[in-house]
Amino acid sequence: MTGSLGSGPEARALLRDRLVAAGHQIDSGLPGIYGRSAAYEAVAMGIIEAARARVEPGADPVRWYFPPLMSRETFERTDYLESFPNLTGVVDVFDGGDAEHAELLATRESGADWAGRLTPSQATLVPATCHNVYRHFTGVLPAPVRLDALGTCFRHEPSADPMRMVTFRIHEEIYLGTEDGALDHRDRWLAITRELMTDLGLVVEVDVANDPFFGRAGRILARGQREDALKFEVLTHVYDDAPTAIASGNAHRTHFGVNFGITLPDGEPAHSSCSGIGVERTANALFARHGMDLGSWPAQVRTLLGV
Amino acid sequence: MTGSLGSGPEARALLRDRLVAAGHQIDSGLPGIYGRSAAYEAVAMGIIEAARARVEPGADPVRWYFPPLMSRETFERTDYLESFPNLTGVVDVFDGGDAEHAELLATRESGADWAGRLTPSQATLVPATCHNVYRHFTGVLPAPVRLDALGTCFRHEPSADPMRMVTFRIHEEIYLGTEDGALDHRDRWLAITRELMTDLGLVVEVDVANDPFFGRAGRILARGQREDALKFEVLTHVYDDAPTAIASGNAHRTHFGVNFGITLPDGEPAHSSCSGIGVERTANALFARHGMDLGSWPAQVRTLLGV
Repeated sequence: MTGSLGSGPEARALLRDRLVAAGHQIDSGLPGIYGRSAAYEAVAMGIIEAARARVEPGADPVRWYFPPLMSRETFERTDYLESFPNLTGVVDVFDGGDAEHAELLATRESGADWAGRLTPSQATLVPATCHNVYRHFTGVLPAPVRLDALGTCFRHEPSADPMRMVTFRIHEEIYLGTEDGALDHRDRWLAITRELMTDLGLVVEVDVANDPFFGRAGRILARGQREDALKFEVLTHVYDDAPTAIASGNAHRTHFGVNFGITLPDGEPAHSSCSGIGVERTANALFARHGMDLGSWPAQVRTLLGV
Repeated sequence: MTGSLGSGPEARALLRDRLVAAGHQIDSGLPGIYGRSAAYEAVAMGIIEAARARVEPGADPVRWYFPPLMSRETFERTDYLESFPNLTGVVDVFDGGDAEHAELLATRESGADWAGRLTPSQATLVPATCHNVYRHFTGVLPAPVRLDALGTCFRHEPSADPMRMVTFRIHEEIYLGTEDGALDHRDRWLAITRELMTDLGLVVEVDVANDPFFGRAGRILARGQREDALKFEVLTHVYDDAPTAIASGNAHRTHFGVNFGITLPDGEPAHSSCSGIGVERTANALFARHGMDLGSWPAQVRTLLGV
């Protein structure tokens, strides 16, 4: 275990510098977009496998892997644009011919923004792993569904804090079914995740939380989410001044059930919940806690991660 | 080994249907963007590990992992926009406040394209894994560099052919150094890759190739690349009518050395080359060849892949 990183911007810069000096974080030139070392990737995969190993015996959920892009049609059905426009990413592409290409290059040559000549495509960046999933369950659910999913996600919140990334992976345990089942799933996986993080040597707390809903209307949504205790976060003190969320559990009520037309056998919209681990946030927290050299990590932690 | 898929659009649809029915390909609603099964992911990781196992003993290259996004500044330095504008992707984001958000949602409500109200960010999708790498070697190279890199790439070429994806991974062995060293690296890894694919049960050929340079000027660039035998592809007949490239080796001459200011100790620009494996293309070719059930694959192939 290494010493405290301290507080404020200096603490964020210190963690960043240590990750970069050890080769675990490879800068792209943009904040929040980082390459990773082989040791870092081994830790990342180890976190995911350690979480999966804690699924109850016999549950054997379907396991899906998702790429960083999804269709705009699916994206729109999640209402993400209403709640988190500032975090959204749409892929712009070029669909011209030789003449338009010449104009594109001339625009660039002139110093103006050539990307303004591109056209929005039907692909968006994926905001959360579970958003890939719901479209596959439109219709009547004969029985509750449990899914284990890993996906690459995007949130446009560039930051000098290495804990806050623009592109990163979220591992999720997702449930679709009844209201009680959804709450039970969230609470069970929150407990499992809290225990896993503790076993990995992190000091964590679980607290009620809200998603960062946008704007004036968003403040009301955030307050309602807290009052109804729908979202909880697993937090750890990477820095002294404020804890950082490394995992969360979220009950969505019938939000996705209604929007994607997923119903229970009685015709009511399905409830859903998910429990997600921020893979790179957790890895960063482990490097901050145990040091940049995997070889000096506690044996129990290395065994749990298989590194 | 399963029977031939045949030719034409039917063959492409047949492979797609088989991958989907087996659960290995999970549709996103957009062509070229697919989720994957756990078995598929195990094959994908097995391909990468099998390639890495063939590095010469003691070479021990640095191993880097890259996310799907890179900075526009780096992207521009590769000249990708000149040569492949049609494959390019830039991330559009929303940077307004409450009023602009209301306008964004009103635009969407009206049926017009709300994404037209977004702003290009400084992030682009990554076209090729090695493009992440060069910026880290600006300056004088004291000795040649070998890198093993895995990255998520983007090419805007949506297609009903499941072999042609919009988002996918490329595993690359990258070299930076002398002209002879670059050609030797490319040729050695082409031979290694060809042998690996053969050992995996694929019938492959290696042929000179060209990148899909855009437009009228692109035809001249493509011809020059072929005449100078800079690029080779490892091809396999997934379909009867035309082979598909699953890997390639590319000598870049001093293109990246010049554009990224990478020089040899004598002051001359560095040469570079890379040998890349299309991870999902190779996995698809294996499923097409050996069938959708991993359990029935030849023992030698399963051993090589560790599945």
